[in-house]
Amino acid sequence: MASIEEKRHTLAHVLAAAVREQYPHAKATIGPAIDTGFYYDFDFSGGNAPKEADLVALTESMREILADWSEMTGIEVPEKDAKDRFAGNEYKTELIDEIVGKGEKITLYTAGGFTDLCRGGHSEKPSKDIAADSFELERVAGSYWRGDENKQALTRIYGLAFETKADLEAYKEQIEEAKKRDHRKIGQELDLFTFSALVGPGLPLWTPKGTLIRHLLDGFIWELRQKNGYDRVTIPHITKKDLYIKSGHWAKFEDELFRIKTREGKEYAMKPMNCPHHTQIFDRKPHSYRDMPQRYAETTMVYRDEQSGELGGLTRVLSITQDDSHVFCRPNQVKEEFFRIWDMVDTFYGTFGFKMQPRLSFHDPEQMEKYLGTPETWKQAEDSLREIAAERNAEAFIGIGEAAMYGPKLDFMAMDSLGRQHQVATIQLDMLQPERFDLNCTNEKGEKEQVVMIHCAIMGSIERFSAVLIEHVAGNFPVWLSPTQVRVLPVSEKHAEYAATISTTLTEAGVRVILDESNESLGKKIRAAKADKTPYVIIIGDTEVASQKLTIEGRDNGKEENVDLSEFVSRIQKEIAERA
Amino acid sequence: MASIEEKRHTLAHVLAAAVREQYPHAKATIGPAIDTGFYYDFDFSGGNAPKEADLVALTESMREILADWSEMTGIEVPEKDAKDRFAGNEYKTELIDEIVGKGEKITLYTAGGFTDLCRGGHSEKPSKDIAADSFELERVAGSYWRGDENKQALTRIYGLAFETKADLEAYKEQIEEAKKRDHRKIGQELDLFTFSALVGPGLPLWTPKGTLIRHLLDGFIWELRQKNGYDRVTIPHITKKDLYIKSGHWAKFEDELFRIKTREGKEYAMKPMNCPHHTQIFDRKPHSYRDMPQRYAETTMVYRDEQSGELGGLTRVLSITQDDSHVFCRPNQVKEEFFRIWDMVDTFYGTFGFKMQPRLSFHDPEQMEKYLGTPETWKQAEDSLREIAAERNAEAFIGIGEAAMYGPKLDFMAMDSLGRQHQVATIQLDMLQPERFDLNCTNEKGEKEQVVMIHCAIMGSIERFSAVLIEHVAGNFPVWLSPTQVRVLPVSEKHAEYAATISTTLTEAGVRVILDESNESLGKKIRAAKADKTPYVIIIGDTEVASQKLTIEGRDNGKEENVDLSEFVSRIQKEIAERA
Repeated sequence: MASIEEKRHTLAHVLAAAVREQYPHAKATIGPAIDTGFYYDFDFSGGNAPKEADLVALTESMREILADWSEMTGIEVPEKDAKDRFAGNEYKTELIDEIVGKGEKITLYTAGGFTDLCRGGHSEKPSKDIAADSFELERVAGSYWRGDENKQALTRIYGLAFETKADLEAYKEQIEEAKKRDHRKIGQELDLFTFSALVGPGLPLWTPKGTLIRHLLDGFIWELRQKNGYDRVTIPHITKKDLYIKSGHWAKFEDELFRIKTREGKEYAMKPMNCPHHTQIFDRKPHSYRDMPQRYAETTMVYRDEQSGELGGLTRVLSITQDDSHVFCRPNQVKEEFFRIWDMVDTFYGTFGFKMQPRLSFHDPEQMEKYLGTPETWKQAEDSLREIAAERNAEAFIGIGEAAMYGPKLDFMAMDSLGRQHQVATIQLDMLQPERFDLNCTNEKGEKEQVVMIHCAIMGSIERFSAVLIEHVAGNFPVWLSPTQVRVLPVSEKHAEYAATISTTLTEAGVRVILDESNESLGKKIRAAKADKTPYVIIIGDTEVASQKLTIEGRDNGKEENVDLSEFVSRIQKEIAERA
Repeated sequence: MASIEEKRHTLAHVLAAAVREQYPHAKATIGPAIDTGFYYDFDFSGGNAPKEADLVALTESMREILADWSEMTGIEVPEKDAKDRFAGNEYKTELIDEIVGKGEKITLYTAGGFTDLCRGGHSEKPSKDIAADSFELERVAGSYWRGDENKQALTRIYGLAFETKADLEAYKEQIEEAKKRDHRKIGQELDLFTFSALVGPGLPLWTPKGTLIRHLLDGFIWELRQKNGYDRVTIPHITKKDLYIKSGHWAKFEDELFRIKTREGKEYAMKPMNCPHHTQIFDRKPHSYRDMPQRYAETTMVYRDEQSGELGGLTRVLSITQDDSHVFCRPNQVKEEFFRIWDMVDTFYGTFGFKMQPRLSFHDPEQMEKYLGTPETWKQAEDSLREIAAERNAEAFIGIGEAAMYGPKLDFMAMDSLGRQHQVATIQLDMLQPERFDLNCTNEKGEKEQVVMIHCAIMGSIERFSAVLIEHVAGNFPVWLSPTQVRVLPVSEKHAEYAATISTTLTEAGVRVILDESNESLGKKIRAAKADKTPYVIIIGDTEVASQKLTIEGRDNGKEENVDLSEFVSRIQKEIAERA
């Protein structure tokens, strides 16, 4: 039985066969399996190219072809045979040259009379293995040969493919749901952030409501940090380049820095990270072992010169607000500090119902040029992370090549309510910057002892976390985070007085209330509350004025009648305090 | 009787006479009166120059000369006579050419046989008018002819001069006191901020204690703003230059902007002010008159490319944290909004005991090129400020040429405990940016109505305000602002337990406490508390353990014995809550 990857890869061949049948001028290039199916890149420059509207017919044609592919077989051929077969297709020719250059074997795979250059990894019995209704073509996109925008422009056709029709439908529903929950859409609807053409893409402007949420999230982080002995510090957003030359960032990240030349010709940069600045605060005075650890926290923006094509919504921005922290500690304090942070991460993400999966992000020994330090320092640092994860009984998986420039990381993947994984919190162990900046404390014996730095952003960035959270809850923020927590809606003017009393009582109890005194109909007022995703709507009509009780429409819990105001006040206060 | 300016000017002549007597090679250039006395610039390049140590003798010699100057008289002379008299002094020759060029008269003033080129404005009877002990030479500094560093380097000799010896002494004492209170010195002693050569001058790094103070100050501002209906917003620290072209900042402030060219060659700038960004938040959607005013607050850094020679301590920095706000309101709401802000300014500065003096900062009609807008808009805006000040019965004085580029300001000068005035809060009325950005709301008639912007930073900048406050209180922050509010000092180990109970009780009551459990002597612990300027020190010895009462050493109120813990807790909580 073929694996899903093999099936997807096979379907890429089927797509190529279908395209060549309907568009004989098309030159097939490369077509791999991907996470949700497959794609194939074609050069249609010799004639017309399929459009989105043509995909249904093309899918049909794939199904017909697949029915005929009872077997797929591979053979090894000499260079000349391969080149003859793909004469006139300069892409396949280039691929053949490449295979030959590496001294590898050239293999061709054939099914139903269609042959493609391929390394293998297919279903051997496509028509039997692959259900005809388990796949469909999804969309058409532009691409370039070898992904290089200076090379030939190609057309990429994407297909979705799963084990069964049910899986395919489930995935499509998830995509539909994800579109509805798109943070860019909800962010606009709930008036959380905006963009301005004058300010530029990738530079979100946060409205009052969005800023309130930012402050509440950051306040939660600070509450956790304060309990764990952190202090806040403050740094400027620029520095002389000297700081980054010393830290090593200049050499590795020069292109991604926003660089500034002052009027006096001095070179400055906007900070892409906060750690080098924080080392300078730590290093302002000598430290005794008695002062250790020093724990600095700062929520502040960092800046990366991203390519504008990569910018979108809140997930890829030029100015990123990190809820950053740096612990300067002795080597023997690393474990406890990691556990403290891990606890904070668990508390924070647990509050929102995310399932967390830790990843040990290690360096790639094949690419040492990407990192600072020696293989020995790396081994030492990675071993201690392994130990920490083991001691915590965490099912951490290892990500090779995912380390930071200066050390390995413990990254956290959060699984959202749609089952999607997002990289969020990160804890990084850094022995290299303390070495480069000569950061130390005096130990019990009066000797200089080099300290270790632990970097950690719990939210990662407020922008990315906000995007993930908005989509996770579909804009239905928990009560403590909702910009408006309660709306009080008097049915008519004669209910205004009691409604105002309720609104005042709630406001004085620290609840964010809107008293909707507009002349609109009750229906319209309720729709406004729904559009706002307000957790509680209190409707005040004759009955409520008479009984002096509340009728509450709960966003999450439905309707309740005859509620005592003081009971509701205690309940919502508790819900807010507990971040329920 | 001569005015103090005339006396000071006369003393500049006396200084020149004394210098020429002792340093015959010196060429006198220019010597004006200044706020605290006078100075004179000399070219000593033909021989030796006086040092700081020579000033006492030079002052003595001035006194002898002054005694002989019973009369000072001026005469008008033709160009040739003047040039003959100053033959060999290229500076005076240049000045004579300048006077002639302007078609003005050349006047020479003589006393005691010493003649100088001068426009007049002296004491006519120097030896009678000027008390010999009312002045003294102060210091020697470098300068340049015409203040131009490409021209001849000169030596500037400064003198202090007042009406009486008592005034002179009082001024010198104030200077001594100011030196002791220098925020750079106290900031270092109290470990509030630091600088790093790698980060660069003008870029303060705020330590945990300094950052705590920043947050407390900013929290106070936010408390005031929240009560007045403000919302916080958040903007990135950069923007495409398009925003500043539209706002008008690019044309007026291009040189002072930190400019950035991205890797794609796009032009960005770091924000030198927040208003243009805030207009984009206001303008994200249409506004009805019912939504007005919109009040946005944001404490955030702005950046100015200052010349490095101008940087020093916290008063001149490259990155400035503004407690900024922008009210977008209808013209008929301006007055109320100004009064609201004015109240906040009074409350904030009143808390610290500053005496405030408002200034109406108007434009200079002679220099319209410095401003945006027409004389009519300016008149309208300045008239409404005048009206606002009048209605408030404020003794505001007018500062011509002190306006912002886009409108007049109501600035506040705070007088500190040494009697020095500092420009702090500023409220600005802006009708021009709303015009340039086409900011409007729909009025009751359904018409578009252009809004007005009111800019206001209450602290001005946290950096400058911190510097002013540190010097105002000489580092003795009020209890609510003190990083450590109480230190508990057990005399020896047997007092540790009771001391710990007290410390815990206070911490749980929200007080910032240090329990000094070190093995140091009580004397050393007390010195540490004094060095930290801790408001309350609780000493726990045998007596206190026996009585279960406290002995408190108050920084401001002296010693108290037999204090009940719960009584002290309520007292300090009240002091903190009331920002006493």
